[in-house]
Amino acid sequence: MKLLRYGALGQEKPALLDSKGVLRDLSGTIPDLAGKTLTSASLAKIKALAPESLPAVQGSPRIGACVGDVRNFIAVGLNFADHAAETGAAIPKEPILFNKAPNCIVGPNDDVMIPKNSVKTDWEVELAIVIGDGGSYIAEKDAMAAIAGFCVCNDVSEREFQTERGGQWAKGKGCPTFGPLGPWLVTADEIADVQNLAMWLEVDGERVQNGSTKTMIFGAAYLVHYISQFMRLDPGDVITTGTPPGVGLGFKPPRFLRGGEVITLGIEGLGTQKQNFVPFSA
Amino acid sequence: MKLLRYGALGQEKPALLDSKGVLRDLSGTIPDLAGKTLTSASLAKIKALAPESLPAVQGSPRIGACVGDVRNFIAVGLNFADHAAETGAAIPKEPILFNKAPNCIVGPNDDVMIPKNSVKTDWEVELAIVIGDGGSYIAEKDAMAAIAGFCVCNDVSEREFQTERGGQWAKGKGCPTFGPLGPWLVTADEIADVQNLAMWLEVDGERVQNGSTKTMIFGAAYLVHYISQFMRLDPGDVITTGTPPGVGLGFKPPRFLRGGEVITLGIEGLGTQKQNFVPFSA
Repeated sequence: MKLLRYGALGQEKPALLDSKGVLRDLSGTIPDLAGKTLTSASLAKIKALAPESLPAVQGSPRIGACVGDVRNFIAVGLNFADHAAETGAAIPKEPILFNKAPNCIVGPNDDVMIPKNSVKTDWEVELAIVIGDGGSYIAEKDAMAAIAGFCVCNDVSEREFQTERGGQWAKGKGCPTFGPLGPWLVTADEIADVQNLAMWLEVDGERVQNGSTKTMIFGAAYLVHYISQFMRLDPGDVITTGTPPGVGLGFKPPRFLRGGEVITLGIEGLGTQKQNFVPFSA
Repeated sequence: MKLLRYGALGQEKPALLDSKGVLRDLSGTIPDLAGKTLTSASLAKIKALAPESLPAVQGSPRIGACVGDVRNFIAVGLNFADHAAETGAAIPKEPILFNKAPNCIVGPNDDVMIPKNSVKTDWEVELAIVIGDGGSYIAEKDAMAAIAGFCVCNDVSEREFQTERGGQWAKGKGCPTFGPLGPWLVTADEIADVQNLAMWLEVDGERVQNGSTKTMIFGAAYLVHYISQFMRLDPGDVITTGTPPGVGLGFKPPRFLRGGEVITLGIEGLGTQKQNFVPFSA
């Protein structure tokens, strides 16, 4: 299934995308796509519905982030060997984990704001995992069953805040609007091989990232297993899993966003995003 | 005011502690102590109530974490010069920020679980800030007005997970039960000088941490100002602000928790906590 949220920011309603591309409202079935509505039991109930029995959504509403009410937005750093190389970092022996502030999450086509005092805002197309049943100490063989599905994430990053302002990356990763998620949460059963999906990102129409989840150092199932050794994964938590080469930091000379750019990105089977980068406004 | 949450885990109700030490139920006024119920407007409404008009809570219920539904649990590292020295780290030029998984939050007297495979579980008494109105780009002079209040936090930490497992501290800070918060959220208007509060921690009755918020490198108001440059602070977000000397890592030889210990800790005016440290159980 392709599940999504539509409507004004903060007032999104849940929906599914039917096989003809029509949005079907799920408000009568679940209050939101968030937390416990993402468990395997809840998703099974949604899957049992006949999509054509659900009300078709009229007009062309805004598409919100495909998960609401995220509590833990975990990110994995340097998870593609060739991206680690372009940033001058060693290949990690274990996954590098940090957090994005959950309130940075926005819809896939919302504006992204360049923070005040930013000089190094950068892009990162990433595969995000949305936790379903979750748990602690999840065996790698059970990890896929703990996942609700996958979506596209632009892990927008401010490199000066991230690495030149005194340790720990969180500072450059959770600025307001730095977490476009969506358009859809594609349930895990619809993805034949999550480790073989093409991924790409363009800045003003120029292709700058061209990769595949095939070259991830640590795959989705391993990451869920690994992270669950250190913290409990709950329904609706999101893990964004790292980016392939082609970020602005890797250009020679580096190339950062100033506002005015249009970024488009996508992952095979998971849909596309399009963001206008604009100056910060309250 | 001293505000708190009581009842079984996950079913806590809001209350206040009146001047005679009686718990007064606030369920008729606010649904929970969480998110928007912590704004200055909401706290003003609670303050306008006559405590004796509220139902007295019967019996001796469990005390829960004093804030519910936390979305962003931010921690500040090495924020006491003498603690930085005991861990062998340089004094930070800017605050070091990392995250604790919000689902590690528990009540002040709940059991704390030693994670599986842990060899270096450690303690840290800390002053936690609970965000009220919050915001982005908060001026330092406006920071106290953006705060709802303060509470005690034991920033329980696994040092091997934190620093020996491949970069970024979040790995050793968000294990289940690693975030006891409470007993009370003491509103900011009740604290004459938040930068002059004694703080202490004992392991099995032995005083190991003895400090004061006076020796924090970056004070509460500055931290709120600083963090708001990098992420938006929302009502109910929690910032734990660093620990004074006396953690297990600083002992020679280092001294870590194995389970079976009783930890007590407190901060002047903010109450005390008592935790049994036990092996992990699901």
